[in-house]
Amino acid sequence: MSNPGDRISVKLHRTSGLGFDVDVKGRRVELNSAQEMGRAFTPMELFLVAMAGCTAMDVQWIMDRQRQKVEKFEMSVSGIRRGEDPKYYESIDLNYALAGLNLRKDAVERAIRLSQEKYCSVRAMIKDSVKLNITYSIASEGQPETEYRYG
Amino acid sequence: MSNPGDRISVKLHRTSGLGFDVDVKGRRVELNSAQEMGRAFTPMELFLVAMAGCTAMDVQWIMDRQRQKVEKFEMSVSGIRRGEDPKYYESIDLNYALAGLNLRKDAVERAIRLSQEKYCSVRAMIKDSVKLNITYSIASEGQPETEYRYG
Repeated sequence: MSNPGDRISVKLHRTSGLGFDVDVKGRRVELNSAQEMGRAFTPMELFLVAMAGCTAMDVQWIMDRQRQKVEKFEMSVSGIRRGEDPKYYESIDLNYALAGLNLRKDAVERAIRLSQEKYCSVRAMIKDSVKLNITYSIASEGQPETEYRYG
Repeated sequence: MSNPGDRISVKLHRTSGLGFDVDVKGRRVELNSAQEMGRAFTPMELFLVAMAGCTAMDVQWIMDRQRQKVEKFEMSVSGIRRGEDPKYYESIDLNYALAGLNLRKDAVERAIRLSQEKYCSVRAMIKDSVKLNITYSIASEGQPETEYRYG
């Protein structure tokens, strides 16, 4: 989903205090510290958004290729920070919640595996430093939602 | 800048195609693939935003504590992706551009070092997988801007 050797660039400007914003051709996001959030995201929240978005897009893309019709897709992600500096995530929980007509469990499991092991770039960068706990749920028309543990 | 053991959570909803959005108490950001950007960010752009925001806030915070008056602060970040899957960043360039009255080079260097080595959580998670090239520039009133290489 990108060209080899691509260079991606962004620029942040400080607004006031610890607030920064980024504006790329009209696409805008504001950042601030946890104490001053308001409308802004913290960097560690945005990291989770990047991580969740990366694997969610992979899974959707692979499900499409497997001719599985995903009608709803919610991706939940939460991380627990270390108690000491640097307070990075010591573990991250990922949950893929998919709904659609006759979604196959093996197709969902395969899509998650390909994302986790082959495609997801954000995941690959934190492979050796963060433990991931992965679950998914499938809701098919007329059947109750079922929860599974991945891996 | 956070409590030990904090749990941070976000939830993404698919909108259409490979588009997802996140809405946390009115704070909103849209994600999409590189082919369908429009108003949306790609996950790998957001990762750079998280990384840049994380270290930029650290540096601003430490400069404040060193009683250095930073008047302008621009943070540029760009990454080069691997040619093969997973196409994560094989290297990232970070540039801190600070302006203010009589900013001391050693104070800037120290702020960057503390962020890179002690505080920046995003940086800590990719420590062993991504090479960083760090530069900074200082513009002081009445003096030409000077560029430095960190480390």
